[in-house]
Amino acid sequence: MNAADLRLPVDVPSTALFTDRYELTMVQAALRAGTADRRSVFEVFTRRLPHGRRYGVVGGIGRVLDAVENFRFDRGVLDFLAAQQIVDEPTLAWLADYRFRGDVWGYPEGEIYFPGSPIMRVEGTFAEAVLLETVILSILNHDSAVAAAASRMAVAAGDRPLIEMGARRTHELAAVAAARAAFVGGFSSTSDLAAGFRYNIPTVGTSAHAFTLLHDNERDAFTAQVASLGGTTTLLVDTYDVTEAVKMAVEVAGPQLGAVRIDSGDLLLLAHRVRQQLDDLGAQDTRIVVTSDLDEYAIASLAAAPVDAYGVGTQLVTGSGHPTCSMVYKLVARADSSGEDAPLRPVAKKSMGGKTSIGGRKWAARRVDADGVAEAEVVGTGEVPAELADRQLLVELVRRGEVVAREPLATARERHVRARAGLPLSATQLSRGEPVLPTEYVG
Amino acid sequence: MNAADLRLPVDVPSTALFTDRYELTMVQAALRAGTADRRSVFEVFTRRLPHGRRYGVVGGIGRVLDAVENFRFDRGVLDFLAAQQIVDEPTLAWLADYRFRGDVWGYPEGEIYFPGSPIMRVEGTFAEAVLLETVILSILNHDSAVAAAASRMAVAAGDRPLIEMGARRTHELAAVAAARAAFVGGFSSTSDLAAGFRYNIPTVGTSAHAFTLLHDNERDAFTAQVASLGGTTTLLVDTYDVTEAVKMAVEVAGPQLGAVRIDSGDLLLLAHRVRQQLDDLGAQDTRIVVTSDLDEYAIASLAAAPVDAYGVGTQLVTGSGHPTCSMVYKLVARADSSGEDAPLRPVAKKSMGGKTSIGGRKWAARRVDADGVAEAEVVGTGEVPAELADRQLLVELVRRGEVVAREPLATARERHVRARAGLPLSATQLSRGEPVLPTEYVG
Repeated sequence: MNAADLRLPVDVPSTALFTDRYELTMVQAALRAGTADRRSVFEVFTRRLPHGRRYGVVGGIGRVLDAVENFRFDRGVLDFLAAQQIVDEPTLAWLADYRFRGDVWGYPEGEIYFPGSPIMRVEGTFAEAVLLETVILSILNHDSAVAAAASRMAVAAGDRPLIEMGARRTHELAAVAAARAAFVGGFSSTSDLAAGFRYNIPTVGTSAHAFTLLHDNERDAFTAQVASLGGTTTLLVDTYDVTEAVKMAVEVAGPQLGAVRIDSGDLLLLAHRVRQQLDDLGAQDTRIVVTSDLDEYAIASLAAAPVDAYGVGTQLVTGSGHPTCSMVYKLVARADSSGEDAPLRPVAKKSMGGKTSIGGRKWAARRVDADGVAEAEVVGTGEVPAELADRQLLVELVRRGEVVAREPLATARERHVRARAGLPLSATQLSRGEPVLPTEYVG
Repeated sequence: MNAADLRLPVDVPSTALFTDRYELTMVQAALRAGTADRRSVFEVFTRRLPHGRRYGVVGGIGRVLDAVENFRFDRGVLDFLAAQQIVDEPTLAWLADYRFRGDVWGYPEGEIYFPGSPIMRVEGTFAEAVLLETVILSILNHDSAVAAAASRMAVAAGDRPLIEMGARRTHELAAVAAARAAFVGGFSSTSDLAAGFRYNIPTVGTSAHAFTLLHDNERDAFTAQVASLGGTTTLLVDTYDVTEAVKMAVEVAGPQLGAVRIDSGDLLLLAHRVRQQLDDLGAQDTRIVVTSDLDEYAIASLAAAPVDAYGVGTQLVTGSGHPTCSMVYKLVARADSSGEDAPLRPVAKKSMGGKTSIGGRKWAARRVDADGVAEAEVVGTGEVPAELADRQLLVELVRRGEVVAREPLATARERHVRARAGLPLSATQLSRGEPVLPTEYVG
């Protein structure tokens, strides 16, 4: 299924232009030099986690699969490339026929990663594989940053549900991807209708301060909301005086009031006070939702407070201080000549200035100790040791150009919970530290 | 012109779903209560700049105008809203007819803003204006964050051109908006083809390390690139040994070689060394482009180095530490009854917990001193003082639903340069400080 066929407002006709110009000029030069068809292996990995983070979370795999499928150069795009003289005629002809016909393996979505983990491996001719660099990195770097923040917030929230509310704090389409990545990382719902539409994530939301201010007084506003949305709605109680508002909310909606939302002030203090007040009013089942510039630390600090759900915006969609990952897409092996059977040779940048990498097509496995707890991320270029054969992390995603690994988003979400549960306990400390697993390279 | 008609890969059929669910439930409740038609004024402003920043830069106005024009609920969206029971039948019918018919005024794109500046004012019925909240904030918060980072980098770079290269570090469509905002803030070009396609921003790029690694040796790679892209291309010289590579680059391309690019290592040291080597080789006109995790501070630190252009990625598209602004969209005035002539009453949230705002429809002007240098951002709700009448900042953007303020992106870019030049000199210090202008409220 080509996502463009769905005519969804969050899709685009082609992903081919989400590409740095140099990918195309490299294709042109390689076509002319006769090297474009050399079989090549590119790998996505990161040299480090964001400072202090214990683990990374793979987000965006499903979106990468959409992007690879949609990566076509239509007439409008080719006309643009020609008019701008970005590439020459032979390259335009090659691009017109382009579709990716190679193979992609990768960590499945929701899986944990560490520095050096070969998160994705793209194999094909140089030209067909190099073209995908920019869009693959855009998706994985963005979505994994949000998924990692979501995972930390989910740890902090424990069993309490998390609501994604960050659309207004990020680009309108990044917001949709962020809601998706947040769901993978452990969030339960989103305020973003586009995310509900595109990814079937449950949507929530009832009213803002503007609704209260629109009406002649708070009672009119609550009455209007309850009349329309029912007594189990969530009433926002911090426009004027919280205590007055809670009293009025229960008067208007009755003790079956679904929830009250507090969006400002000292949330710890207010949650205790409002819980007591609700209980005294007989509204023991009315929940308390808090939503005010929360991050994982603020969530953790409310663990002992009578809070029933957290709404998180800014800090989620901006990766809680780390809005992007540092994933790169590197050529790690290539043939000396054209043809599918030409042997692959490991390659790597070698300059003194850093940014070096390890050549060769890699496998990865997570080694566990006698208790079944993960103890190392093992990455190698040779044979997989027998004892690690069934612990390998890369799965086949695209086979000769066909996507073979579609899955529901909930599957990725469940995988993440399992993967995180398999780490040492210190993985879920919020405090800064080293990656919770060492990465071991074997030849 | 409806942007959806252009069938561009960076547009979407409708922006109506880039909306938090509560906007729609508020419309439903207000329709039922008979308050949906109350004339209302919403304003976008921020209570603070990112820590230490001297000024903010308005980015995304042109994209907001596209979004307002495209904000329609088509059959697919309405079916989704019905199936999910997000709103009731009367609301669905109202949404089916929706188009924004109100007025929008705002700071023009590229203008400077400060805490409390009424960056945008949306006026219409409550229902038609509240719906636009999420998408307007998404665009302004994202694009202004990138424009502000770009502006600081442009100050640091002086007359040297800046190349936007951040596509791989952010969501693939956020990247397009980021390239646009970077151009407004002072960048000259982008690596992102979609940004070139959609916004006519010049695109640049030649090759990556993978191209060198693809070939049997660096000489073969350089020869292939020069054969295809010409002797004035930019050769990447840090795959193996920089000195060897520079020597080879000039041998292969001749002294007319356009540029060499250095993407790792000690850029200050390497730039001096490479400049000397190029000059010694007779390649005095060959430029040096540096591109390695630059931010405004790294750019400034290279001011005395023989660098000809900077490529910036991660730190630009993530707002150099501040990936979003804290702009909010608040109801500041509304009528007590329906009808266009009902008088407006200022409203504002008043709870003790913070997040208060100033009610009333506002004007803004930038007062200058005797030398013509800006000295205060003056914001008021009453009459505009005569001496500030020709220094007003808000311009008409949408009149009764029709966009009236389209402009070329270059106009916004030039406006930003002028606006920044009108600030006190300390505005362009990179070091942390207070907003360079105080905001004064007058009744």
